[in-house]
Order: sequence, then structure tokens, then C-alpha cells
Amino acid sequence: MKHLREELWFQTPPRRGFINITAQVQDAVARSGVAQGLCLVNAMHITASVYVNDAEDGLLHDYEVWLEKLAPHAPTSQYRHNDTGEDNADAHLKRQIMGREVVLAITDGKLDLGPWEQVYYGEFDGRRRKRVLVKIIGA
Amino acid sequence: MKHLREELWFQTPPRRGFINITAQVQDAVARSGVAQGLCLVNAMHITASVYVNDAEDGLLHDYEVWLEKLAPHAPTSQYRHNDTGEDNADAHLKRQIMGREVVLAITDGKLDLGPWEQVYYGEFDGRRRKRVLVKIIGA
Amino acid sequence: MKHLREELWFQTPPRRGFINITAQVQDAVARSGVAQGLCLVNAMHITASVYVNDAEDGLLHDYEVWLEKLAPHAPTSQYRHNDTGEDNADAHLKRQIMGREVVLAITDGKLDLGPWEQVYYGEFDGRRRKRVLVKIIGA
Repeated sequence: MKHLREELWFQTPPRRGFINITAQVQDAVARSGVAQGLCLVNAMHITASVYVNDAEDGLLHDYEVWLEKLAPHAPTSQYRHNDTGEDNADAHLKRQIMGREVVLAITDGKLDLGPWEQVYYGEFDGRRRKRVLVKIIGA
Repeated sequence: MKHLREELWFQTPPRRGFINITAQVQDAVARSGVAQGLCLVNAMHITASVYVNDAEDGLLHDYEVWLEKLAPHAPTSQYRHNDTGEDNADAHLKRQIMGREVVLAITDGKLDLGPWEQVYYGEFDGRRRKRVLVKIIGA
Repeated sequence: MKHLREELWFQTPPRRGFINITAQVQDAVARSGVAQGLCLVNAMHITASVYVNDAEDGLLHDYEVWLEKLAPHAPTSQYRHNDTGEDNADAHLKRQIMGREVVLAITDGKLDLGPWEQVYYGEFDGRRRKRVLVKIIGA
């Protein structure tokens, strides 16, 4: 069994943002030498997501508006988590909707994605460097 | 390491619908010859979901009503994604709640499911043929 | 390829509750002897979740309040699923937001988690014993 572990680092200057990481995940798959296997990509932080959807700016805007409606940032006093001195409770909620991780098939040495599938990092409490884990196993 | 890749094709005549795909996934597991492993089942389209829940018609109705409340289709002008000429922005949102994929354990050559776990394809922008990927690895 | 399958059993006396299961999953990883691999942890019941987030009591309270807002338990008559004699339709909805499963990387024989990542069992229709499946594969 072959395996590879890599960390990808990201920083979004604003609190929230979306970054297309498909090419970086594909590069890790190539480095792994795995022809047939599975590729786990997960946020290592609990106020961020890795998800698969469209690389379309309008949709990224829609996600931002929609998540803010379902789990508003303000007033920060509405969340008991923020009594700890944090102001990011909403980010822990938004991340549950968008998910922690994706598991991607590897076929013939490449990510086995549908025509519009793109891998995204979703940040809901940014402004510092944070990590994504890529773990690949296969043969 | 054994492995298998299959595509399942589905078409829901209305825009939205749910299809129980458990038997088809189980058939793929049998064909793989894998006794112990993992089975990834993911939508290859970004306006559809694969998820695990109950095979109960009332619940499928409840999901439809609930998703429409959390991410309404109309008015389509409320979503910037629809400025591209699409009218399916809501489907990209609904799919995030229901998820892209499930990873299922394979034990003794069979899907290792709890008593009520059924694998479903959830379609939020149908009316054409769309694909689900099954990728199995193990020994 | 090495593999291990274990069931973890839980009972929450109230209908809803959250249990930190990180140590029990880590113990299973140790027993598996897998140095590099993947660890699937999934609820075997369809009104419960396994997810990764913060071990902070305020946040657990916030999840409870937020999920009740997005998918209220009462009035139970609002859900067609409850026409079957059940009163847990809301639990099937809440579980979709929090997710069925997590897939965790195993590196050097340990769960490869970020500094704040903790594995949780989320129960939305408790008051009886229910199971979580741990399936590990690797080398």
C-alpha cells in the first residue's frame, strides 16, 4: 500500500473566504504515485471547511449570504461559545453546513471528479494561517 | 489491494427527487471481491447528493419541504449564480446540507450498515441523466 | 492490508446530547496496528451524527439551540414522517446538518487531528442504546 501525507497552508485576509484548491490536491495525488485509491482532504481547524462545488464567483457570493442568514455572526452575544472571549461561534456553525472533509476517488493516478467538481477551502474565521490535511492511500 | 470503480446513472423527471440506491451499491461491492474495505459513493454533479437515511416516503416529503424552506428555489433572482443564465443556485445550496458523498464500511464482503441505514441519491436539479461514482478499495 | 472493525455503544438519557468519543476512537486505532491509513467513524442509526468540532460546553449548547431553530421538534404534526407513529422527524433532519460520519487520517499509528479537532457523537433521538461503527484500513 502506498500512502502520502501533506499539509496545505492558507490565509484569507478577511474573516471569510473561499479558495479553489483542486490543483494543489491533484499535485499531491501525482506525488503519491497512487493509481487506484482514496484521497481524504480535511480542514485541520474547526472553523473552516473543505467541500466540493462550483468554481463560479456568483455562487461563492450566494454561499456567503446564505450561511450568514442560517448562522449569523452578529450579535455575537447570542452564542454562549462567545462567552469564552471568542467571537467565532457562527464559524463553528457555518462549518457544519459546508462540512469538514471530502473523500475523493483516485483512478489511473488522477482525481476522479465529475466535469464541474472543484475542491474548495471555505474559511469562516480567517486572518491567520490555517492548515488542510491531504491523506492518500492506495496502490 | 483490490479496487473497483463503477458509475451509476440516474434521471429524475422532476427537478427534485430521491432514489434508493442501496441495492446497486451492494451489487458493486459484491463484484469488487473486497471482503474488508471502504466504499465511497459520491454524486459526480454539484447539484445532487448521496446520503444515508430512512427509506420512508413521509420523510422524503419532509426533506423536500425543509430544504425548500432553508434554500428556496424562487425567486431565482435572489441568487447571483442565476445571473449566469442558470436557475439552479438553490440546488447548489441544498446539496451542501444533504452532502456530496458517503463512505461505507465493507465487512465480510458486504456493506456494513445499521438496521435502518439506506443509501440515497438526492437530486435537486434533475430532468437529465446524471452520474454517481462508486469507488471501492480493500482486501 | 490491516483492518479493524469495532462498535461503540452509547446512551444519552435525554432525547438530545453530545458525547466526546475521541479517546475511544484513538484506542481502536491503537488496537488496529495500522500506522498509515484511514479511519471511518459513522453513526449506525439515522437520527444521530458523528462529527468533528470543539470540546467546549458553550458551543454544544449553541449547537442544540441552533439545530432546534433550523429543524424544530414541535409541533410534531408538521412532519409527515411522524404520521407513522414516530415523533423524531426533526432528528432525521438535524442529523443531515451535522453529518453521518467522519473519515480521519491515521499517521504513524495515531489519529492525525488538528490541535482543536475532537470527535463527537451527536444524539438527536436518544433514551436507548445506539451504536457507532469504527472501520480502519491501512498498513
